Parts: sequence; structure tokens; C-alpha cells
Amino acid sequence: MSLARQHGPAPVDRVEAAGRIDAVYRVRCAPAAIEARALAIAAEQSVEMPIGAIQDDWIRDEIVARVEDIEAEPEAKAAEAVGAAGAAQQAWRVTLSLDARTVGTEPGQLMNMLFGNSSLQPDVELIDARLPAALLDTLPGPAFGVDGLRALVGAPRRALTCTALKPQGLPPERLAALAGSFARAGIDFIKDDHGIADQAYAPFAQRVAQVQRAVTRANAETGGRSVYAPSLSGGARSLAQQLRIARDEGVRCVLACPLLIGVATFAELVRERGDLAILAHPALAGAARIAPALLLGRLVRLFGADATIFPNFGGRFSYGVDTCRAIADAARGPLGRHRATMPVPAGGMSVARVEEMLDEFGADVMLLIGGNLLEAGAAMPARAREFVERVQRASAR
Amino acid sequence: MSLARQHGPAPVDRVEAAGRIDAVYRVRCAPAAIEARALAIAAEQSVEMPIGAIQDDWIRDEIVARVEDIEAEPEAKAAEAVGAAGAAQQAWRVTLSLDARTVGTEPGQLMNMLFGNSSLQPDVELIDARLPAALLDTLPGPAFGVDGLRALVGAPRRALTCTALKPQGLPPERLAALAGSFARAGIDFIKDDHGIADQAYAPFAQRVAQVQRAVTRANAETGGRSVYAPSLSGGARSLAQQLRIARDEGVRCVLACPLLIGVATFAELVRERGDLAILAHPALAGAARIAPALLLGRLVRLFGADATIFPNFGGRFSYGVDTCRAIADAARGPLGRHRATMPVPAGGMSVARVEEMLDEFGADVMLLIGGNLLEAGAAMPARAREFVERVQRASAR
Repeated sequence: MSLARQHGPAPVDRVEAAGRIDAVYRVRCAPAAIEARALAIAAEQSVEMPIGAIQDDWIRDEIVARVEDIEAEPEAKAAEAVGAAGAAQQAWRVTLSLDARTVGTEPGQLMNMLFGNSSLQPDVELIDARLPAALLDTLPGPAFGVDGLRALVGAPRRALTCTALKPQGLPPERLAALAGSFARAGIDFIKDDHGIADQAYAPFAQRVAQVQRAVTRANAETGGRSVYAPSLSGGARSLAQQLRIARDEGVRCVLACPLLIGVATFAELVRERGDLAILAHPALAGAARIAPALLLGRLVRLFGADATIFPNFGGRFSYGVDTCRAIADAARGPLGRHRATMPVPAGGMSVARVEEMLDEFGADVMLLIGGNLLEAGAAMPARAREFVERVQRASAR
Repeated sequence: MSLARQHGPAPVDRVEAAGRIDAVYRVRCAPAAIEARALAIAAEQSVEMPIGAIQDDWIRDEIVARVEDIEAEPEAKAAEAVGAAGAAQQAWRVTLSLDARTVGTEPGQLMNMLFGNSSLQPDVELIDARLPAALLDTLPGPAFGVDGLRALVGAPRRALTCTALKPQGLPPERLAALAGSFARAGIDFIKDDHGIADQAYAPFAQRVAQVQRAVTRANAETGGRSVYAPSLSGGARSLAQQLRIARDEGVRCVLACPLLIGVATFAELVRERGDLAILAHPALAGAARIAPALLLGRLVRLFGADATIFPNFGGRFSYGVDTCRAIADAARGPLGRHRATMPVPAGGMSVARVEEMLDEFGADVMLLIGGNLLEAGAAMPARAREFVERVQRASAR
């Protein structure tokens, strides 16, 4: 940036440049219209007004998003676009750069600048975002991450195991009994189903107290280190209260849905969680319009999730193997100063697929299997034990 | 519900039934598969486990979502589906009912039960939700609503006017000067652009103080009652701080994005806003997969927005006139005990379209015009004044 460009109205020229964010969109549009469309998205995602009506050079040069690149997408790639509308038109990859000063350091405002208004336009998907070093560094990122979660359960190398307490509707004592069975089988992380909130039939305070005690008792019996992760829900006031209850009960890890509680609230939760690890659940991710690797991999990691749950290929959801690999890569690959976030493939997984999943993701993974354990009925403790043993064996290969 | 069914494990039978929520989905699926698919969505959105593995009659009968209806959609209707994937397959309208006890009264958990996991499945869109009377009554709804906003600006009958302060990048004194011009032109609501957060070049505290003073001064000069609505952003801690600053400066109305800050956090903001009215902005609405009338009309109203901004037809966004009419109807139609929420069509609107918009929406509307005023350049005050006068004239027809 030239010195001349830095010169804007007070106090603007006192605000140091913070680099530029590259945001990459897939846009469906006729060839003749793509340049104008790219400029329109640049305006939409920055100043949201006619560029010609901007009187300040500094704003026009720096704050208005710049169209950095427009590239035709190979049709094969475009065809697998999630939620793409208007398949008859050609797909383009448009890279815009945004001034990082428009974001500051707040995750909600980052989402707003990346996709606030454009999320309402059906021809646009957000497929990638590259942040400048300073912004990357300022975002919280995981405090535990892969290594911290391993340390929590005393498993330095092998893949980790996870299951879910369900169905909702069970009273606290039944959920606690179930958690006890899972812990005695040696499963590492036992999380609440994300549908379990603070319902009258299993109020948070009673449920968390009873489940945590059951897990602690089972650990004492077996010498194991299973961890219970209750699901937090509600606004900040409710989250703070639940966090306090969880901590008082000796809980070491919690589950939260960044897109349900809001990414800004999620980031505040991250700051206030003390020594609790945080698993992110993808509910309401609206991922149909934001590339899953970006949202559930990179962004959720930057916002501070220690583990990120995502719908794995071959289950109840539609993500392909490439999408899942991209999520895991985004969660674990180099990213500024940040720890790796543990990828947690899930969503209709079964014990029979343990080896296949470890072949795909390696051992820096936490496998989450829920319904497949429960449908064993009376044989559930045996199947849970089989889950644990197959992971141990497959990790040692 | 029979007495036998009410008998579940303690403390379940002490939790009174709260009625059922009807959730309506558009599902793309081959005819031979739709019944199984509907049952799968019912499981996904309630217990998220194999139904056969549920041992409790009460949970299977009440908590598992019920498939109430499956109807083939006329293809014409299906074709206009927002963000629909796999257009080759037939579209179905599937109605599920959910036990309202799974929600309690928390907006985030309502979104979770309506569309948490299914939002990750590309063949499903959420198109409607009907809540039982008790739940409807418990949700906050608007405190001001249409009548309260009218009272705030002293305009009991005519359509209201609104504009936005932009572009971001302007320092507080420039935003204040702009707000003063708008207020002197007589515009009712002057909101921050939703991209204006707490950036270093226009920090919230300085900006809000200067803009509010400029509007107050202009009102004193003209005898008008223009209202400034600053944009709130961040997590709950930041929202609470901004709310306090706004109140201290004499602000009477604020803007917030429910999908960016999280619907649960939005609902807490609603409870804590004291005597400030709240405008909802649709950023990041992911509306591609939730019907706009449901999300931006009914749900945002139930969560407590006094006015809901939506992208109007014929502007920069793609919503058709039917979609916009449905949003306005959902915002203003009968809905339990709740006040009407003011519909705010926006997104590339112009002064030339004032009469057309009033013909479409009637006078219980707030027109939001931003860029079209600013692009008049030096003639902006005259165009803002024209906006105000055309609304007055057209409302009196």
C-alpha cells in the first residue's frame, strides 16, 4: 500500500493497516455478466452502496473489497457444489480481498464480512477464506486441540473414541446409567446428544451432576479416564450458568453448536471456559452455502474449538470423501500459531467401519459412534468395548 | 394423549405435555423412497438414533417426531424452491410433529429441533413451522412492534422511512454529519449499515455518541422525531456493553443480526434491552435452506424483533414478490398474543419505487433506502426529503 493511499480522514489514518482477507466465492453466472457480478459482490460484502457515490479515496481504495481474480471453474467441480442453484449457468471462482480493518478481531463480524449479505443471494457460495497473519494470530484458536484432548484422556498416540448419550426424553438417572456403561467400556469422550438441552424431563443441573458422577465412579472402578462432555445451550447468560455448574461438578469438556449459539457468543464461551475443552457441533451450519472445510474446519478452529464434529461420508449425510478429507485437513493443517483441532467424523458411523475411518484420517482423529452402539440393545456394553478395542488395534497397525 | 402414554419413567411423568410443533419440510426424493426418508428425518430431528433401539414407550410415542403427512408438491412450486439440490427428483412436502417439551422455551433449541442436523442434508429445506399455543405464548415477541415504532417517531398511520449510514470506513464525525442530514430531511429511522461494527476507524462508543447527538440536534432544529439505530455486534458481553453505551447516549432503537449473534443471544438481548426497540437484520440467514417467510417473518418476530429487514423483490437479491409478501404476512398476521413486527423491505430500493412498494405492502411498512440516497451526491438532502414526502403522499392516498 502506498503512503498516499494510507492518507485518509482522521482518525482513519491512525488505524494501521492489518492486511487483506482473501475470500473465495463460487458464483453461477453467464460469461458476459461475471465481471459486473464480481464487482457487485465486492460492493455487497464491503460498503453495500454504489461505489460511485463514495467520496473518499481511502475508502474506495482500501475498504471497498477488490476483485483479485475471476476464474472459470471446470464443470465437474461445479457440479458437486453443495446447494448450488441455477445449475444451467456456468460456475466461476471469484476471489475478493477485504481490508482486515473492517473485521477487527470479532468472529461474528468476520462471518458478516465474509458472507453476511451474500448468503441471501442464491448464486453465491463461500468456498474459501485466507486471513492475513495478524488476524490469524488474534483469533483464539483451540486451547487444548489434538494434543490437549489426548492428554485429557491419557492417549498420546492412538485414535480417540467418542459416543453420545441419547435419546433425549431419558431422565437424568437413565442418562447417567448409560454414561456409566460407556465409561466402563473405556470410551474416551461421552457427549450429550446435541438435542439434549435444558429440558424439563432432564434439567441441565441434575443431568450434569448425575452423569458426571456416574462417569467418575466408572473411572474409579476401571482406572480409566473417560470424559463427559455436556451440551451447552441458550444465550450467554444461560451458557455462563451452565459453564459454572459443569465446572462445579468436575466436568472437563463441553459440547457447543457455534452456529446455533452464534459464532461471537461461541468465541466468548471459548474465552470464559477456564480449563474446559470444547467440542463443536455443526447443527444449523447452513453449510449448504458455505464450504464445509471452511466453516467446520478452519473457521470453527479459529474460533477456538478443540474438536470439530462433522458428518462423515457413507453415513446419514451427503458429504463426499473429498469434502471430509478437506475438513480434516483444514482442522489439522498449519494455521498460523494455532494448535490442531481434532477432527470428529460422525453421523451414522458404525463399529464395523473403524479401520476404514482410521485408514482415511490417520490416528489424529476422534471417532464418534452413537446409535450403532445403542442398537445393540442388551449387547451394548460388549459393542462399546469392541469399539474401544478395534480403535486401539487399528491405531497400533 | 392417553393416560397410559403419559406414564413414563420419573421425572418424565411430572413434565406436563406442552403440545406438538408441526414442522414442514420440502424433501427431494424418489417416490419409492419418500416414506422411509420422512421417517429418517423424523428420527434425525428428534432422537437421532435408530428408533428400534429405543426401549421406552413414552419416548417412542411422544419424543420421536411423528410423520403426520406426506404430500407430492406440484412441480411448478418445487421449481422455485430456494437452494434446492438435485432438481431431477420429485419434491414432497413432509409434515412432522415434534413434542414441544423437546424445546422448552429457548429460541436456539427451537432452531435446533426444527433444523439442527437436517440443515446439513442437501435434500431437505425447512418451509414452515406451526407452534402450539403455549410455546407461542412463552416466546418473547416484539415489545414495540408496528404500533410502538409508529409511536416512537410520532407517525400513527403513514408508512415509515428508514435509511442507512454508510460506507463503513467513515470516521464518527462523518457518519454523524450524514445522520444529521438524514434527520433534517425527516427520515424516521437512521440505522448503521450492518457492516459497521466496532472497527478501529469508528469505535462504537465514539460513533454512537456523535451520531446520536447529531440526530438530537437536527430534531431540535426541525421539531422532528428521527430515531438513530446503531448496529450491535459481538458476543453477549460486548452486546451488553454496547447496549449500556447506547442507552446512556439516549438511543431509542438498535439494529442486530439474529443469525450472526445467534438466536439465543438475540432473545437474551431482547429481554435485556430495556425500553429500546429492536430492528432485525437478515445477515448470514442461510435462508437458502429455510423458507424466508418462516425465518425472517415468523421466527424473528417470535424471538422479539420489532422490525424485520428483508431483501425486497426487484433489488439486489433474488426473492420474488410472493416470497416478500409471505414475509410481510408472517411478520404482521395474527400470531398468538404477539404484536405485529414491522416489515422493512430493503436491498437496493430506490425513491422511484416508493408508490409501488406501498401498493404492495400497505402503510404498515417501513421503507429502507440507503445507497439510492447517497448516490445523489450533493443532491442527497433533496433526495432524502423527496423520499420522506413521497411516503407521506402515497400513504395518504
